[in-house]
Amino acid sequence: MIKVVLIGAGNVGFHLFQAIYKSEKAEVIQWFNRNKETIIPHSKDTSITDKLSELQSADIYLISVADTSIRDISIKLNAQDGIVAHTAGSVPVDVLKTHKNYGVFYPLQTFSKQKKIDFKQLPLCLEANNDSSYTSLELLAKTLNSPCCKIDSKQRKALHVAAVFVNNFTNHLYAIGEEICNEHNLPFSILEPLIAETASKVKTLSPKIAQTGPALRNDLITLENHLDILTQKKHQELYNLLTKSIQEKHG
Amino acid sequence: MIKVVLIGAGNVGFHLFQAIYKSEKAEVIQWFNRNKETIIPHSKDTSITDKLSELQSADIYLISVADTSIRDISIKLNAQDGIVAHTAGSVPVDVLKTHKNYGVFYPLQTFSKQKKIDFKQLPLCLEANNDSSYTSLELLAKTLNSPCCKIDSKQRKALHVAAVFVNNFTNHLYAIGEEICNEHNLPFSILEPLIAETASKVKTLSPKIAQTGPALRNDLITLENHLDILTQKKHQELYNLLTKSIQEKHG
Repeated sequence: MIKVVLIGAGNVGFHLFQAIYKSEKAEVIQWFNRNKETIIPHSKDTSITDKLSELQSADIYLISVADTSIRDISIKLNAQDGIVAHTAGSVPVDVLKTHKNYGVFYPLQTFSKQKKIDFKQLPLCLEANNDSSYTSLELLAKTLNSPCCKIDSKQRKALHVAAVFVNNFTNHLYAIGEEICNEHNLPFSILEPLIAETASKVKTLSPKIAQTGPALRNDLITLENHLDILTQKKHQELYNLLTKSIQEKHG
Repeated sequence: MIKVVLIGAGNVGFHLFQAIYKSEKAEVIQWFNRNKETIIPHSKDTSITDKLSELQSADIYLISVADTSIRDISIKLNAQDGIVAHTAGSVPVDVLKTHKNYGVFYPLQTFSKQKKIDFKQLPLCLEANNDSSYTSLELLAKTLNSPCCKIDSKQRKALHVAAVFVNNFTNHLYAIGEEICNEHNLPFSILEPLIAETASKVKTLSPKIAQTGPALRNDLITLENHLDILTQKKHQELYNLLTKSIQEKHG
């Protein structure tokens, strides 16, 4: 049984707790959160605390807190031979280097507390300062049935930027679609099949090849018509810049 | 049996042919394409032609050609009592008004010849100049097992812009994600679960509520780090504008 002390109860921490709790070969022996209230509902499932000084001895300490707090938490940990790993996309592994064994356990996924996560479909990006720590983190990933891959800090940073484009920015484009629908008394749900199909295409076609639309065709009449319909200046600016970017990419 | 003459063999025309061909209550009695070569492989399935003067009498004439050619094709048709309908998102129904019965049969989906389309998941946006034409178009939609809804020309134009945001522009963001992966020796496939989850979320959460990321948190350190990683000026510009747009939307 892999003994985990989980630190943090944000979106990632919350889902990690659920996944480890359900697994048969790992357990959260203790859950720390600065604000104890948040985790009190789980006090029947694990030991909970809001004091770092009270942390128990564990195989892995998973730090799942805001990027800027990782270092502060880390230096207060007395992990001994335990592995200290953070779960952040854009924080280098080095911030944990005061420990003997350390690494990264970065789940490349978007988390909302309201929505279940299928860990079988969740790539875990791993990094560690030595082979045995890597093997332990890999074992934890396998225990959660998640695919995993070795990604160094520089690659992980790039991956995090790519994730911002395909997740945060994409979601914002959905939000703009929703606003346009609302303005014209259209149900946003009518766009769901299109959103699903666009996402599904990347599994079989490179997005470069899958590109379609008036920007690609340089269909000036439609481009102008579309700008007329957009009532918000920011939407117009985005429409223009994304159009130019598509045209630049496709020569 | 609804008799359809299909005009055009682009991505939309191609998939409409497949769907009507498979249906039990409609048939493509004739397929026109300016370039006959494209449809010759289907000459065993239907009558094919490259001459508008040879078109047969039908219940519905579906015009699925480039937006700018719809009017030209339409005025050359002698449809009599048949319904002339185009399949375009941003062309008003009026361009067909020289006919007695006319309308729009707009499939709100992205089409590639390489990828099958599930017509059960394909919203068909319908419009017609009279009730009986509308009922006929609705019947054709039902024959293809597609959900359909009444959308007027103004709404359809807005819907088309929204579709550009959630499909063309979103696909371009995927393409940028792919470029970043390539630059850093990362397999683009690692982003697939994130892309799928981001798209899937809209079914249960409004994208406004689902928004996460450094832009929303105004996490200046990460925002600056990300800009450093982006090597292409256009990617940086998009990063900045999308970040600002998210921040504006969320105050």
